[in-house]
Order: sequence, then C-alpha cells, then structure tokens
Amino acid sequence: MINFEGLFIEKLNIISDNRGSVLKFISKDSKGYKKFGECYISEIKPGVIKAWKLHEIQTQNIAILDGKIKLNLYDLRENSESYKENFSLEVGRPNNYFRITIPPGILYGFKCISKNKAIIINCTDIEHDPKETINIGLEEYIFKQ
Amino acid sequence: MINFEGLFIEKLNIISDNRGSVLKFISKDSKGYKKFGECYISEIKPGVIKAWKLHEIQTQNIAILDGKIKLNLYDLRENSESYKENFSLEVGRPNNYFRITIPPGILYGFKCISKNKAIIINCTDIEHDPKETINIGLEEYIFKQ
Repeated sequence: MINFEGLFIEKLNIISDNRGSVLKFISKDSKGYKKFGECYISEIKPGVIKAWKLHEIQTQNIAILDGKIKLNLYDLRENSESYKENFSLEVGRPNNYFRITIPPGILYGFKCISKNKAIIINCTDIEHDPKETINIGLEEYIFKQ
Repeated sequence: MINFEGLFIEKLNIISDNRGSVLKFISKDSKGYKKFGECYISEIKPGVIKAWKLHEIQTQNIAILDGKIKLNLYDLRENSESYKENFSLEVGRPNNYFRITIPPGILYGFKCISKNKAIIINCTDIEHDPKETINIGLEEYIFKQ
C-alpha cells in the first residue's frame, strides 16, 4: 500500500446481527477526524465512473456502505514526497469495509464495480464550498479500472 | 404531525443524477445539529422490528438512505407537555427522505417495510455510551405497524 501523507485507511468494525448489521463509521476520536463540516451520501450506479474531484481545503472521510467501488487516488501536492504518485484499491464489504481519509490536494475518483449500486458516505471537515472544489475531466488522468 | 419538543423532521434535498444521486444529510448549520459525537449505520432487514431504544443524554439525527421504515416514537419525558404521547410515520425515498432529530427521553423503534433492507444513518452528538443507552423490550409498548 502506498503512503500518501495524511491519507489514512482504517478497517472498520461491522457488528453482525441477523436482523440487520450495525456498521461503525466515524467518531470524534477516530484517526483522521479533525472537525465536523458536513455529512452526505453519494450513490453510484453499476459500471459508472465518477471522477475526478479535488479539494483545496476540505478533507474527506469516506466509507462504502453497500456495493463495491474501485477508488483511484493521485497525489497532486507539489510539496509532497509522493507528488504525482497514484494508486487504486477495491473497497466494499464484507472484507474491505474501510474508512478512508483523503486530505486536500489528492485527486480522487470512483468506479462502481458491483452489480448493485454502491453507496458512499462522506463526512467532511468543512461544508461544501464550490470555491474550493475542483472538477477535473476523466480524460485528464488514467483511471485504473 | 405531533409536536414533541426538540423533535425536528426536515425534508432533505436529493440531487438527482443519472449516474447516481447525491443525498444531503446534515451539516454543522443544520437545524437540530448540536455537536459531533459519532456517525454510524444501522441496517434492518425486511419485516424486522428493531425496538425499543431510549437515550438519557444522546441526541439522534437519522435519515433512511435506502428502503423504507415505519418509525414509532413515544415521549417518555415526565416534564414534557407531550408526555406519554406517541406517533408513527413512514420514512423513505423518494418522497419521505427526511432528517429526523430525536432528543433524549423519546423512545424510538423501527420496522423495515420495504422489500429490500433499509439503511439508517445516525449522526449523534456524543459517542456511544452504554451507560446512557437503555434497551426496552418490544412487549413494553405497542408498535404501530
């Protein structure tokens, strides 16, 4: 696994219950938690790629509640030791139920690789602000499928 | 709709997208938001009732991301104007995508009324603490199905 400064990937606990499971996500004491800005949900249909997104200030804390995704990350921080490095990983239950903390300056994109839609939850440290949110075309960087 | 002090029900915005929708949930400026303790997910299988839960201190902020539930609420606060009153409501997309703020002292329970599992997200003001969490048997109060 590549080491991007400020990027944390933590396996989360699933409390199995035959009536329906409980899934831990994030608390104020979690690694990578800074402060609370906003929490929202993003769905992605099978086969769809949602890419690329970049934030100048906002930190993302994501988990995949349902379905599976391929996550791609590129470090675009010029002062970073891992500048221009990239990697991808598959995320989804039951074995890869992770919280992923993506700091600002890291480009990210998702592809839904499950037969059912994937549900992504994101807990950020500041509220959505279009001024610090940069959308970059899918053609600009290679998405590893 | 019954008026329990501290209970807020707010219709949330769904940003429709043919690649997969984005669902607003809660921000630091949302009505009912106090502070951030924890965010977790609870699944409930079709036909299952998860009831009852009561908190002495913790405030719940819930939304139903997928599937549908019947929510039952009882006001057990002796000093409340609505003491011993109860009501139930159906919650789920597309028309009833709500954030529901449940203050401490209100007993609550869920039944999954969709064919697929329901996914409940909960953002609380303090971390989970078994000392202030009270589980009450389903037989103690009538669950309106």
